[in-house]
Amino acid sequence: MARVMAAHDPLSAMLVEEAGFDGIWASGFEFSAAMGLADISLVSMAEHLTNMRNMAARTSLPIIADVDTGYGNAINVLHTVAQYEAAGAAAVVIEDKMFPKVTSLLAGGRQDLLPIAEFQGKIEAAVSARKDRGFLIIARVEALIAGRGEKEALERARAYEAAGADMILIHSKQTSPDEIESFIQNWDGNIPIVIVPTAYPEMTEARAKALKKVGILIYGNHAIRAAVTGMQKIFARIIEDGGIENADKEIVPVSEIFRLQKMDQVKENEKKFLR
Amino acid sequence: MARVMAAHDPLSAMLVEEAGFDGIWASGFEFSAAMGLADISLVSMAEHLTNMRNMAARTSLPIIADVDTGYGNAINVLHTVAQYEAAGAAAVVIEDKMFPKVTSLLAGGRQDLLPIAEFQGKIEAAVSARKDRGFLIIARVEALIAGRGEKEALERARAYEAAGADMILIHSKQTSPDEIESFIQNWDGNIPIVIVPTAYPEMTEARAKALKKVGILIYGNHAIRAAVTGMQKIFARIIEDGGIENADKEIVPVSEIFRLQKMDQVKENEKKFLR
Amino acid sequence: MARVMAAHDPLSAMLVEEAGFDGIWASGFEFSAAMGLADISLVSMAEHLTNMRNMAARTSLPIIADVDTGYGNAINVLHTVAQYEAAGAAAVVIEDKMFPKVTSLLAGGRQDLLPIAEFQGKIEAAVSARKDRGFLIIARVEALIAGRGEKEALERARAYEAAGADMILIHSKQTSPDEIESFIQNWDGNIPIVIVPTAYPEMTEARAKALKKVGILIYGNHAIRAAVTGMQKIFARIIEDGGIENADKEIVPVSEIFRLQKMDQVKENEKKFLR
Amino acid sequence: MARVMAAHDPLSAMLVEEAGFDGIWASGFEFSAAMGLADISLVSMAEHLTNMRNMAARTSLPIIADVDTGYGNAINVLHTVAQYEAAGAAAVVIEDKMFPKVTSLLAGGRQDLLPIAEFQGKIEAAVSARKDRGFLIIARVEALIAGRGEKEALERARAYEAAGADMILIHSKQTSPDEIESFIQNWDGNIPIVIVPTAYPEMTEARAKALKKVGILIYGNHAIRAAVTGMQKIFARIIEDGGIENADKEIVPVSEIFRLQKMDQVKENEKKFLR
Repeated sequence: MARVMAAHDPLSAMLVEEAGFDGIWASGFEFSAAMGLADISLVSMAEHLTNMRNMAARTSLPIIADVDTGYGNAINVLHTVAQYEAAGAAAVVIEDKMFPKVTSLLAGGRQDLLPIAEFQGKIEAAVSARKDRGFLIIARVEALIAGRGEKEALERARAYEAAGADMILIHSKQTSPDEIESFIQNWDGNIPIVIVPTAYPEMTEARAKALKKVGILIYGNHAIRAAVTGMQKIFARIIEDGGIENADKEIVPVSEIFRLQKMDQVKENEKKFLR
Repeated sequence: MARVMAAHDPLSAMLVEEAGFDGIWASGFEFSAAMGLADISLVSMAEHLTNMRNMAARTSLPIIADVDTGYGNAINVLHTVAQYEAAGAAAVVIEDKMFPKVTSLLAGGRQDLLPIAEFQGKIEAAVSARKDRGFLIIARVEALIAGRGEKEALERARAYEAAGADMILIHSKQTSPDEIESFIQNWDGNIPIVIVPTAYPEMTEARAKALKKVGILIYGNHAIRAAVTGMQKIFARIIEDGGIENADKEIVPVSEIFRLQKMDQVKENEKKFLR
Repeated sequence: MARVMAAHDPLSAMLVEEAGFDGIWASGFEFSAAMGLADISLVSMAEHLTNMRNMAARTSLPIIADVDTGYGNAINVLHTVAQYEAAGAAAVVIEDKMFPKVTSLLAGGRQDLLPIAEFQGKIEAAVSARKDRGFLIIARVEALIAGRGEKEALERARAYEAAGADMILIHSKQTSPDEIESFIQNWDGNIPIVIVPTAYPEMTEARAKALKKVGILIYGNHAIRAAVTGMQKIFARIIEDGGIENADKEIVPVSEIFRLQKMDQVKENEKKFLR
Repeated sequence: MARVMAAHDPLSAMLVEEAGFDGIWASGFEFSAAMGLADISLVSMAEHLTNMRNMAARTSLPIIADVDTGYGNAINVLHTVAQYEAAGAAAVVIEDKMFPKVTSLLAGGRQDLLPIAEFQGKIEAAVSARKDRGFLIIARVEALIAGRGEKEALERARAYEAAGADMILIHSKQTSPDEIESFIQNWDGNIPIVIVPTAYPEMTEARAKALKKVGILIYGNHAIRAAVTGMQKIFARIIEDGGIENADKEIVPVSEIFRLQKMDQVKENEKKFLR
C-alpha cells in the first residue's frame, strides 16, 4: 500500500519526497487554496498542469494528478490525459461529479453526479488517450459524498472498472471509517481501492492495510493545512512582538531554505562553468 | 513606518493581510524557493509577475514587487515596470547587482555590482516607465552585501536618489544591526530607507522607528520558512505515526481552509445565481 | 456601428488597430486555432485571458473578449468577468450554450443550449461581478445556430436583456443574411444587436447600418484565415523553389517587422538609458 | 541537409509540417514579434518554452529551439537546457551575444559578444545538462553580425566545437552569400554548419548543399512575415470594401481551419465517448 501526501507547489512536493512518502498528490483542493480560490473548478487546467509539471521537474516520486472532473466532458478528457501524461504525471484521478464541481468535504455542498454511462465514456476516453499502459487511470466515485449510498457506490465502481479504470478512489466525508470499511469489504472488483482518510482520521495505515484491498492511501490536504498553521502562528508572533527574535527560534533558518534550493550545487556549478 | 511581510503565493499573501501587516513583499527569494529553484535569476519574469498579479487579485494591501535586477538592462526595466504597474503592484524594488544575480544572504555567494552610472540608467528608465507617480521605484543598494563598505553604499544611495528613486533599500547580512544603523545615521538624502532585518533580528520595529528615517521594514522570508517548518513537522509526524490522528490536532482543520476560500460566499452565490 | 476584427495574438491585434478597425475581437475560435486545437472548450481560461491581456498591453483599441460559455456555470462567470475586466477587456461575450461547447459554424456540430433561466443567472452573475458600469456584458444567443428558430431566439434575447445584458449577439450560420435580418427587424428590445457575418458575406457594413439596430459588427475569423493563407502560399513557394528569392518578393521585408516591434524606439531608449 | 522553417505558434508549426519541411525553428524573433515585442530579451523563457511545448504537442517534426543567449549565464543554461529537453525540443541554439541581446539583422543594432572562454563555459554547461546524447547543442556564432570578421568567427567556431557543440550556426547580415560561403569554405572543424539565409536570398538550397558542410538551413522569419502580409492585405481590403465578399475569395474558407483543427476527429470522438 503506497502512502501519498498532497502538495501544492514544487517546494511542498520536495518536502513530501524528503519525508519518505511514496508519492505526491497534485491536489486540486490544495492548489486552489494556494491560489486563494475556492475548489469549485475556477482554477484552469493550464495552471494546475503547469504546477504539476514543475513538481515533476523537481522531484522523483510518482505524481498522482487530481484532475477533478477532467475539465469538461469525455472529449476534454482525451486532451487532459494526453497533457498530464506528457507533463510527467504517473496517474490521473477523474471524479464522477458534474463540471463545475464543488469540493467534496464541504458541509451542505452541491454534489451533482454524472449518469454512470456518461462517466464510463470519460473513463474509456482516458484509457484510449494514454500512450503508456503504465500511466494509471483512477476513477473517483463520489456516490458516498453525494449521499447516494453504498449500493450505488459499488455499482458505479464496478461500471468504472468495466470501462477500464485501473483503480477506484472511494471518497467519504463521514467522521468514522465505517462507511469506507463497509464499501471496501463489499468491493468485489479486481482492481485496488484508493482512500483519502481526511474526514475519518481513525483510519490509520495499519487499519487500511488490514483491509487488504487498499492500493493507495492519500493524505489529501495536510500540506496546505500545515503551511497555513505555520504561517498564521509566525505572523501573529511577529505582529505581537514587533520583531523576529522569538519567531526566528520557531522556524527553520534561511540556510535550510538554501539547502532545499541546492545552493551548494549552484556554487559548484559556478566553479565549473563560469569563466 | 510600514511593516511588510513576504509572501510566495496568493494564500500566503491573504494570511499576511489577515495578520495585520501593512503590505505584502512579493519576494523573489520566496517565490524561487516555492518553485523549488535557487534564487539566481532562474524564475522567469512572466512567472513572478503572474504570481504577483494573482496575489493582487486576492488581497487589498499594497504589494511591493521584488523584481531583482529588473530582468536585464535598462531597456528590460522599461518593460518590467510597465508590466508590474499594470498588474497591480504598488512598488518595485530593483537591485544594483548584475544579472543574473545570486541571492544576497548566501555565505560566500558571488555578488557582482553594476557600475553606478549604469544602474542610474536603470532607475531613470523605471521612473520614466511608470504611469502613476504614486507607483514607487525603490533602489536596492547591495554594496554592503558585496563587502564594498558604507562609503560606497552611501555614494550609491545618493546617486540613485539623484536618478529619481523614491526610496533606498539598504541590505546587510551582518548578524548585528550595527552596519545598518551606521548607514542610516549617516544617510543624508531626502528619501526614506527600507530595511530587511533577516540577518540581524535584534532590529525590532521599535528600534527601526527610533532611527527616524526608515519608511518600510520588510520581513523578507518568514512566510516560506514558517510554511516549510509547518510541513516538515507534520509530514514527519504522519510518517512516524502511520496516520493523522495526532497530526490533525496540530494543524488547522479543513474548515479553516474553507473559510480562507470564502466557501460561505460561494454558497450564497449559488443561491443567488444558479437556477 | 463599430467594426471589430478578430485577433489571435498581440501582433494580429496591433495590425487590426493599424488597419483602422474600431475594436478587437479576442476570438476563442482564432485563439484555439492558433493553439492548434479545436474550438471546443479545450483552451483554458488562463491561456485565453493571458493572451487577451497581452493584446491589451500592446494596443489601445477596446477589446471584446470572447469567453465562450463563461468557463462553467454562473459561479465561474463571477470569476471570469472579474478577471477579464481587471485584465483590460472592454466587454465580454457570453454564449448560452452548454459547457463544453462546440464551435458554432461546424456543419452537423453538437449545439446544446442552456435553459433560459439558467443562462439568465449567468448574465446576472456577470453584471454583478463587473466593477465599472462601462464594462459591457454581451449575451450571445445561439438559438438560430441550434436550429431552434427565430421565436425562441427572440424570447431568449428578451430574457437576457431582462437579466441585465448590455447587448445581444445573434449568431447565424445561414449563407444568406435573411435569417439575421428577420431577427433584427423583429427585435423589440432596447439594447443594440451584435452580428458576426462570417457565413453570410452579403451582409456589408452598409446593409447592417441600414438595419439601424446593429451596434457592433464583428469580423470573426478573418485574421487567422488570412494568416494561414499567407503562410501556406509562402511555405509552398519556398519548398517548390528550394529557396526564398521569389518568396521574398511576396512578403513584407524584415524591416516591416522591425517597425511593428518599434525598433526605432528601442534604439532611442538605448541612447537614453544605457550607460 | 535539413530544411527548417520558423514558426511562432502551434498552428504555424503545423503548417510548416504540412508543407514538407524537415523541422521547425521555434524562433525567438518570430515569437517576440507575435507577442508584439522587440526581439531584445523581453519575452520570458517561461513564455517561449510554453509556446515551444505547445508546438511539440501538435506536431511530429523535430523542433530546434532558439534560446537566444540561454537566458543568462552558464548556470541559467543548465536550467534552460533541462527545461527545453524535457519539453520535447530536439535541439537548442545558444548564441554568443551578451544578455540582454539585440536582434541580429537590425541595421546599427548593439551587438556585444561574450568572451570566448565564457561562452565555452555556457556550451559545456549545455552539454552537461542534457540527458539524451541525441539532443543537439548548437552554438551560434555572432562574430560576423558584430563585424568582428571571419578570422574571429572561425576562432570562435573552433572553440565552441572544442567545448562540445554539435553544430555551429553562423549568422550573417550581408546581402550576398559571399561572407557565409567564405566562412564555410574555410571551416576546418568536424561538425556541420547551420545557416539562416534571410539577408542573402541568393543562397538557395542547391547552393548550400554544394558547400557540402551545411547540415541545416533555417528559414528564419518567413512564417511571421507571410502571416503579417496576409493579414495586412485582408484587413485593408475589408476596410476598403466595408464588407467581406471580396476578402473571402482571397483567403481559405472556415472549413480549412476546421480541417487543421481536426474537427472530423472531434466528431468521431463524440460518437465514441459521449453518452
